[in-house]
Amino acid sequence: MTLTDAAGWLSDRDGFLILTHARPDGDTLGSAATLCSALRRLGKRAYLFDNPEITPKFVPFINEFVLPGGESFDHAVSVDIASPGLFPQGFEGRVELAIDHHPSNSGFGENTLLDAGRSSCGEIVLELIAALAGGITKREADLLFIAVSTDTGCFQYANVTEGTFLAAAELARAGADTAGLSRLFFRTFTRARLALEGEIYSGLRAFHNGEIVASVITLDMVRRAGVTENDMDDVAALPGRVEGHQVSITLRENENGTTRVSLRSGARVNVSKIAALFGGGGHAMASGCTIKALPDKALDMLLPPLEAALDASGEA
Amino acid sequence: MTLTDAAGWLSDRDGFLILTHARPDGDTLGSAATLCSALRRLGKRAYLFDNPEITPKFVPFINEFVLPGGESFDHAVSVDIASPGLFPQGFEGRVELAIDHHPSNSGFGENTLLDAGRSSCGEIVLELIAALAGGITKREADLLFIAVSTDTGCFQYANVTEGTFLAAAELARAGADTAGLSRLFFRTFTRARLALEGEIYSGLRAFHNGEIVASVITLDMVRRAGVTENDMDDVAALPGRVEGHQVSITLRENENGTTRVSLRSGARVNVSKIAALFGGGGHAMASGCTIKALPDKALDMLLPPLEAALDASGEA
Repeated sequence: MTLTDAAGWLSDRDGFLILTHARPDGDTLGSAATLCSALRRLGKRAYLFDNPEITPKFVPFINEFVLPGGESFDHAVSVDIASPGLFPQGFEGRVELAIDHHPSNSGFGENTLLDAGRSSCGEIVLELIAALAGGITKREADLLFIAVSTDTGCFQYANVTEGTFLAAAELARAGADTAGLSRLFFRTFTRARLALEGEIYSGLRAFHNGEIVASVITLDMVRRAGVTENDMDDVAALPGRVEGHQVSITLRENENGTTRVSLRSGARVNVSKIAALFGGGGHAMASGCTIKALPDKALDMLLPPLEAALDASGEA
Repeated sequence: MTLTDAAGWLSDRDGFLILTHARPDGDTLGSAATLCSALRRLGKRAYLFDNPEITPKFVPFINEFVLPGGESFDHAVSVDIASPGLFPQGFEGRVELAIDHHPSNSGFGENTLLDAGRSSCGEIVLELIAALAGGITKREADLLFIAVSTDTGCFQYANVTEGTFLAAAELARAGADTAGLSRLFFRTFTRARLALEGEIYSGLRAFHNGEIVASVITLDMVRRAGVTENDMDDVAALPGRVEGHQVSITLRENENGTTRVSLRSGARVNVSKIAALFGGGGHAMASGCTIKALPDKALDMLLPPLEAALDASGEA
């Protein structure tokens, strides 16, 4: 479906339920809430599905849009959902319009508005609302700024294009509080999270001339810092901040004595092959596995194949 | 001077020395190097002044532009320098063109191209080069992306406008390596710096129901982490990452037994008044002073006036 088709499809209907994906992030929530807000401005009934996994930071931004108990809907629309496995239960086969930017979108929607060249669904929804409602409100600009900025790591990731910055310029022009939202989403952490970061940074270990950096997160560290699962966003990215490394490992102790392993890499080592040795998988630059051992022992098991892969890559 | 005037002034001359400010940052260096590169493309002789305080991260980007010993110049141009106190010695009264975005620019230049509405000199130089040379190269796009992104804290600060994002879009279109440069300048740190951050986060202290957050950096911590002055960029911003605080204090022990204090605040407390109590000064939201005592004692001296100011602000 083209953008104009999708805008027409929405214009012709009423009574929308908008679905966000499992473990919802800023893009799925901000884009869905913006679509909901714009549909309401057009006098339509529209709600967000009450995603049970929303983290506290997002609640004040999307609360007013969530479907109250007892309300009905006629048309299900998904935003930023790539495959049925990321759906709320019970919606398989019922999505009439899927709005997405993932190249891997499985085509589950009756209609699909897909643009895999966009950093975020927020970029797509910005254009969709222009076609649908002639422009966005200040509130919608805030929601879309959350979508675009969080999905690009604050404009730092490789998915950022000229179009991403043009979208951000349009959001700033429409009144988005870029500084306040950036502070909230990129520079504000609980004391517990910072205490855990402190322990992680203090305990970083380096191997193979600094090409491998490892971070161990034990249950003891988690308890000492007092963090909850909401504080654990993206902890696997922290050892990757060390300059000069090629591979970073995060080893997180599970309650049952096993260790959850995250591997991140630059171009030299395909870490999905390492993860596969331990029954895991993922991408060449980001993969994971679970090892039935405590973190220190798991690290001992991971180092030999990683060092061999680095040696074989021949750039050392 | 208008932008067109400045472009004409540069076009009519040859033999430029471009000055950057004391403790040079990404904006002064990236903007100055871009101007130098564009002037050279026009067949002119142009060099950067060999600023003795350049930190290692910037060297590979600007090395080729630096004035070799023995070379002469005819016209001095300053970039991102607000006042003569930030000059290299010996250039007072010799700057023929000052390019700047600081509202406080003291007017020291014979000619001045000033736009205080810009986040960075990079935004101004981008337009200047368009007028001067018709556009920028890939290399210049990288240099200006360093300028704009570092002066805005990666698009997070309050100085960001629609124009900032439009400039970034233009740089992306011209081939700037936005992802690689963002990684280098915002997500890459020495192990020593991360070890120090670890100690700082682990040792954060909270007072007055969490409204005051304090970080103490002792000489012992600096030695243990093995950091150099190059690793100390912006450490005063770290305690400000704690959610819910109003005032953050960074206390850094000096070699002579005194303590360097940085105060940061939101809207409720004017910390320049607190700093003034101890002979310091600055802005309402960011100020500093030096106290003749070790950090713990200095903290004891700072807390009563800060708590009184918070109580008087009446929002607690």
